Amino acid sequence: MKVRFDRIERIQAALRERGWIAIVVLNHDDYRYLFGTDRAQPRAIIPFQGPPELLAFTGEEPELRAALSGGQVRVFGSVGGQIHDVVGRLRELAAAAPTSWASAGRYKVGLQMWFHTPAFLIDLFRQVNPMVEVVSSDPVMDPLRMIKGPDELALLKEAQRIAGLGMDRARELLRPGATAQEIATEAIYTMMKAGAEGTSTPVYVNFGVETCMLHGRLSPAPLERGSLALIDLTPTVDGYCANLARTFVIGEPDARQAALLGAYREIVAAVRGVMRAGATVAQLDERAGRVCADHGFGDYQVYGIGHGIGLRFEEPPASTIIPPHKNLPLAEGMTVTIGHTVLAIPGFGGVRIEDVYRVGAAGPEILFDYPIEPIVSA
Amino acid sequence: MKVRFDRIERIQAALRERGWIAIVVLNHDDYRYLFGTDRAQPRAIIPFQGPPELLAFTGEEPELRAALSGGQVRVFGSVGGQIHDVVGRLRELAAAAPTSWASAGRYKVGLQMWFHTPAFLIDLFRQVNPMVEVVSSDPVMDPLRMIKGPDELALLKEAQRIAGLGMDRARELLRPGATAQEIATEAIYTMMKAGAEGTSTPVYVNFGVETCMLHGRLSPAPLERGSLALIDLTPTVDGYCANLARTFVIGEPDARQAALLGAYREIVAAVRGVMRAGATVAQLDERAGRVCADHGFGDYQVYGIGHGIGLRFEEPPASTIIPPHKNLPLAEGMTVTIGHTVLAIPGFGGVRIEDVYRVGAAGPEILFDYPIEPIVSA
Repeated sequence: MKVRFDRIERIQAALRERGWIAIVVLNHDDYRYLFGTDRAQPRAIIPFQGPPELLAFTGEEPELRAALSGGQVRVFGSVGGQIHDVVGRLRELAAAAPTSWASAGRYKVGLQMWFHTPAFLIDLFRQVNPMVEVVSSDPVMDPLRMIKGPDELALLKEAQRIAGLGMDRARELLRPGATAQEIATEAIYTMMKAGAEGTSTPVYVNFGVETCMLHGRLSPAPLERGSLALIDLTPTVDGYCANLARTFVIGEPDARQAALLGAYREIVAAVRGVMRAGATVAQLDERAGRVCADHGFGDYQVYGIGHGIGLRFEEPPASTIIPPHKNLPLAEGMTVTIGHTVLAIPGFGGVRIEDVYRVGAAGPEILFDYPIEPIVSA
Repeated sequence: MKVRFDRIERIQAALRERGWIAIVVLNHDDYRYLFGTDRAQPRAIIPFQGPPELLAFTGEEPELRAALSGGQVRVFGSVGGQIHDVVGRLRELAAAAPTSWASAGRYKVGLQMWFHTPAFLIDLFRQVNPMVEVVSSDPVMDPLRMIKGPDELALLKEAQRIAGLGMDRARELLRPGATAQEIATEAIYTMMKAGAEGTSTPVYVNFGVETCMLHGRLSPAPLERGSLALIDLTPTVDGYCANLARTFVIGEPDARQAALLGAYREIVAAVRGVMRAGATVAQLDERAGRVCADHGFGDYQVYGIGHGIGLRFEEPPASTIIPPHKNLPLAEGMTVTIGHTVLAIPGFGGVRIEDVYRVGAAGPEILFDYPIEPIVSA
């Protein structure tokens, strides 16, 4: 358990600058980012000053203390009393903070407001902490987390390499009669044997018309000759997420399949050509849209061709979740996918080809160069 | 895709009785319960009258319409316009509802307020629907969902049977030097090959002192001779969740290990003896507490010995999440685990032995009778 005091100090500096009394961590990804490990119920407080604090259950306390380096982290354990502990600590922090930080008597506390922060917990949190104003922790966390350091990049590359192994295995199972369940089972097994913890989303294996779905889970009917097959793999390594999607056709593609596959390859190439520091997802989408229009698929464009990826499967820029992110300029060191959105003819089928790139000084650097070979002999 | 109009009608009757204009479904479990299938982004409205409504993306619309039976479900697709669609529909429903349903100009809409309902979506929902008061959908959904019908019970039994196959595989891998990653990989593979979609929680494989954790994910260091090993498996079948936990010791247990294992077996037997319609989790905990005290482990009792299980991994009664649920009386047809909480000596190790039971007229009926054989020859 390697606590990242360097990151914690940068957060504390940002808290003091903004006049927030703390960030409360309830999520796996921030917990991993700060404490170098994970637990089933991650709970921590990063106060604006002083040591970071972990909340544990009583029975977990000795193990957690033993794992922590040199007492620089406060650990307090209880069962069912954690809400009370948090309320008490936030009151102490409010009392210790400059009164100028309060607005209408309330002090700001940052929380990650994302898919894994449940509304019922936040409603309860607001109710028991009336002197607290809940704010999204993004403005403090994003500037740190968006730029990936060398250690992070190595894990993202390893996750993407493992996704490639899963895709190899999935591809070799593609034949008439294959089931999505079988393909997902074998892909997950291959990836976990190679060291993946699991996947950050379900494995998506879709056949035929179900390839139209933005994300379609597992198709119920077996694969047929002549069908499209769309596979999306998202293994994680030490919490870092991969994202590799490929679309295959079983046998010779028909004209529409070939047109969709050809257009998507061109979209990927075109977007790679404009991905650089300073560019926005809106600009990437605009470039993708021109390719769609050139191929007569203008009506079928779905916006959000890329998204950030790291300890969260989708993180800033995440324009399909937070629309203003489409105008967030990319910066060197960000990791971003190209190929997030499906190009689909409704009622017929769709294509996605997705990889992860680092935004580099001279353009995008692919994390793992997995082949695009859509045609599988039937 | 078999739409359960019978369930939808019961919900609509409950909505009219309570004066709520709709339930908005954003979660996999309610979506499965009502529409007999799942999708990556489940979105539906159950209005107080008229056909249920599904929200899809434009490209998914034809596929979804084709899957739906006879036009009795409204489907509307858009990209990025779904929030607008929902606001518009809720306004129409408010206009059609009796004015007596409004309180301070606002109409009640039920949403599932649980772990998969994100705070940022609910905050946005409140902001764009100022004429709506968000209420938890539990009072409408729980009475239906808590009592499992024969189809549901069959799926829960199948999930639990598959968990047993995973546990068989995990158990045969237990030997000095085995890793938690290897055991989890093989258990998941076995369960998915047997038909599981995946697991509803991570697979938990903990060794030694890490068995103290309430839920500890995967232990990093390999298994050692003489160590405790705690394995918790949660495969799902058609969305229905299993929960099977066993604790093993590699070689002959020492005195404390034997005492913990013996006490837990007695807890399970004692709680089984008092689980019946009308009993509460508080009463089950009280019974468990007496066994703990008899063994000198009174200080180590953790409350919440059982929880409901179905399309959610933890559902009512879920006393460790919603404390008042400890006083919810069990009813015939509920499915409830015994063995949720760890009995742990902090800094030493802990034990859990968990199975799923149907609350029957004459007491608990175990869904799948998996053996308790803690000692693994080293």
